[in-house]
Amino acid sequence: MQQRSEETRAKILESAIRLFSMHGYNAASVDDICKGAKISKGAFYHHFENKQALFLALLDGWLKTIDNAIDASKDKTAPDTFTQMTEAFPYIFETAGEGLPMFLEFWLQASRDEKIWQASITPYRRYHKYFTTLIKKGVDEGSFVDVDPELASRMIMSTAMGLLLQSLLDPKGAKWEKVARDSTTLLVNSLLKK
Amino acid sequence: MQQRSEETRAKILESAIRLFSMHGYNAASVDDICKGAKISKGAFYHHFENKQALFLALLDGWLKTIDNAIDASKDKTAPDTFTQMTEAFPYIFETAGEGLPMFLEFWLQASRDEKIWQASITPYRRYHKYFTTLIKKGVDEGSFVDVDPELASRMIMSTAMGLLLQSLLDPKGAKWEKVARDSTTLLVNSLLKK
Repeated sequence: MQQRSEETRAKILESAIRLFSMHGYNAASVDDICKGAKISKGAFYHHFENKQALFLALLDGWLKTIDNAIDASKDKTAPDTFTQMTEAFPYIFETAGEGLPMFLEFWLQASRDEKIWQASITPYRRYHKYFTTLIKKGVDEGSFVDVDPELASRMIMSTAMGLLLQSLLDPKGAKWEKVARDSTTLLVNSLLKK
Repeated sequence: MQQRSEETRAKILESAIRLFSMHGYNAASVDDICKGAKISKGAFYHHFENKQALFLALLDGWLKTIDNAIDASKDKTAPDTFTQMTEAFPYIFETAGEGLPMFLEFWLQASRDEKIWQASITPYRRYHKYFTTLIKKGVDEGSFVDVDPELASRMIMSTAMGLLLQSLLDPKGAKWEKVARDSTTLLVNSLLKK
């Protein structure tokens, strides 16, 4: 039973990603999502309180990928942490490829809905804090030049978010995974003490 | 008459920005936009063929701000061009403040609609080319280190787009205009020949 229930949940999530990406969060109804997943409405509400709860579950799943990449690189020097992170890029860009319009939906809905905003802003601020601490560690351990950690963290977040946006807008315009890896190298090099 | 016609057009654009930002491109109808602008549907269709044409006009207006900032800084050295550009930041962030959800709508609609995609991708590629040329000029004139101009241009675009996204998500989280200015300084310094 447990396994079957998880399969149903996965089907709902897949159907939702597809529909939100194609038609948008507002246009895709719970009915549509159930039809797409070939499940009953009863099954839907067994798993999710409403469409918003489902939306937040999608956000959560996507953030876990990033969190795992971050977890895998603790106990390293700051520059090595960045290098380690790039190993998660293929996976991030692969999953993002299908879900990128979703990613934009998160921001858009967050700008309109207090609860979704809270759910988005918390991990966003957590990443900002994480990178600020990482840069500070790099400065303290003598790897990095004396840069403002807050500012460098904002730039790293900008680069990451901006790259995702560009890869959505122009998927065939560049090898985005390579651009992301090369950008990380360039960023880290500009921070490294010569 | 000419003046009155321009006022009507401006009213339609304002009403559209407000409604698209609040409810989204798909949810806001031509009817809603006319009501918001207090104009007749006839007046609407005198100015715009349809909702999509209006949407593209909004994109155009926003891009003009950026183009003007770029125009103002030609004939300077590459580093000075960047410095000059920062003078447009207050205006860009001020106008973006009200229209930022719109900015996300552009990307989202572009990922779903071929015509809007074409209209977005053309200026996007133009800016990428512009920054690639600017970086190359900086390298050739001896201001910048020998960096890959294509890559540096992608990073500049990422930083700009990522900053706009962040300022939308967390408007009170930082002084975004200052972050943008400091980021530019950091970027240019990392490119400068020491």
